[in-house]
Amino acid sequence: MLYLIGLGLGDAKDITVKGLEVVRRCSRVYLEAYTSVLTVGKEVLEEFYGRKLILADREEVEQEADNILKDADISDVAFLVVGDPFGATTHSDLILRATKLGISYRVIHNASIMNAVGCCGLQLYKFGETVSIVFWTDTWRPESFFDKVKKNRQNGMHTLCLLDIKVKEQSLENLIKGRKIYEPPRYMSVNEAAQQLLEIVQNQRTRGEEPAVTEETLCVGLARVGAEDQKIAAGTLQQMCTVDLGGPLHSLVITGGGMHPLEMEMLSLFSIPGASSESQSIDGL
Amino acid sequence: MLYLIGLGLGDAKDITVKGLEVVRRCSRVYLEAYTSVLTVGKEVLEEFYGRKLILADREEVEQEADNILKDADISDVAFLVVGDPFGATTHSDLILRATKLGISYRVIHNASIMNAVGCCGLQLYKFGETVSIVFWTDTWRPESFFDKVKKNRQNGMHTLCLLDIKVKEQSLENLIKGRKIYEPPRYMSVNEAAQQLLEIVQNQRTRGEEPAVTEETLCVGLARVGAEDQKIAAGTLQQMCTVDLGGPLHSLVITGGGMHPLEMEMLSLFSIPGASSESQSIDGL
Repeated sequence: MLYLIGLGLGDAKDITVKGLEVVRRCSRVYLEAYTSVLTVGKEVLEEFYGRKLILADREEVEQEADNILKDADISDVAFLVVGDPFGATTHSDLILRATKLGISYRVIHNASIMNAVGCCGLQLYKFGETVSIVFWTDTWRPESFFDKVKKNRQNGMHTLCLLDIKVKEQSLENLIKGRKIYEPPRYMSVNEAAQQLLEIVQNQRTRGEEPAVTEETLCVGLARVGAEDQKIAAGTLQQMCTVDLGGPLHSLVITGGGMHPLEMEMLSLFSIPGASSESQSIDGL
Repeated sequence: MLYLIGLGLGDAKDITVKGLEVVRRCSRVYLEAYTSVLTVGKEVLEEFYGRKLILADREEVEQEADNILKDADISDVAFLVVGDPFGATTHSDLILRATKLGISYRVIHNASIMNAVGCCGLQLYKFGETVSIVFWTDTWRPESFFDKVKKNRQNGMHTLCLLDIKVKEQSLENLIKGRKIYEPPRYMSVNEAAQQLLEIVQNQRTRGEEPAVTEETLCVGLARVGAEDQKIAAGTLQQMCTVDLGGPLHSLVITGGGMHPLEMEMLSLFSIPGASSESQSIDGL
């Protein structure tokens, strides 16, 4: 049996009791280490689980899935994923591969940012399409995700922006020369995401377009959701450029306007001093 | 401290290790019992947690929140919610009430249908606004949620339909006479939801409108997500009227069209024999 087990968002103890029992009895335990991270490292997890973990990077899961699935028809193999196993597409790949090999699978769900983002007080059912904001480079500065934000806002929906993670990335030079030297991991901050967004807003204005988001749009920055030191800040997109949320992981929500009074009241708990947005004040609630 | 603790979706062991530790040390533990249910009852939870649970119904949470929050400034009180605490609005109420009383709160997240629905293979970030389908009565047959499904489909987004739960409801007669006699709990099935949807489709046609959904629209029925005996079935809306998914809880997804090949391939794992949809076959993948 292949077990896909969500680890939740915080630390080692965010695994479910069921998940922990399975981890402790599987013959091999893989830890997916490229779509998200916990606030604790592999060693802390190993100590708490009482098991050695095999790090599975993107390359391995995509190219060597058969190693992961080896003997999973006659023994139990666990594949651990930060959050819930159904965030990233690659895990569908693994399930399909298992199914083709006649290997059964089971999923042990957990919280992921896709539902835990509700902790800021915005109503989950009013979120539209989720977007990813990637690190821009000198030559690659994609803006296409902005159309989705626009569509969400036109429909009064909030947009969850997942911020880029670069783990085990090679520099162009090392890639070309085939050197397996990796850059240190990078995690996009809410500040960086907000700055990129404001640049897109400026570009749209330069092109004579009316941007769907402005400096004054009410946003929510979230850091380390689910961890002890979780931080949430509500304020304008402009304020998101400078708010200090501490270490990774960060996420950003662009609100959809037309909010429920309860949403506003919840956001006011996290309001940056002096914050006021385009249409509704979140101060003084 | 007020702890809002998600219980996940399946049984007693779907609580997180962190959640369980908190439950075991709190002075009072409430179980919210009106927005969802696990596959096991209160007694099973009590035995596994080693704690007495106080059932909190909607009335109590809305009208007697102060009882729940009593002494939470000097002791720890846990409020357990099936799924994650941020599905239903009422829990924002409780947090706001606590904050006003100067009581700190912490959330221990877990899986909810809002993210676990990804187990059917549809990509989570492509879900639009979530809708609720309520039991129709002779005099109240709301169709307005259908506009949201339409908007989602126009934008190529899937729609998660949460199906009605009636717990501790009174008949009109008992309500009028002030008799606290409650009807047995009712959980809407995928069959019932699909039948209501098809009736709306017919009504739209009668009014000369072009319905956004037809008998042939590809849908996914899910039952007891996260439980051992979870069931998923992919097929047309027509097929959802008769597919047998067993006991509660059920959810329904109306797909958005224009799906990714991986989504289709995953859905084919759950395909009802003979299923074929409007635009894409999910057979023979």
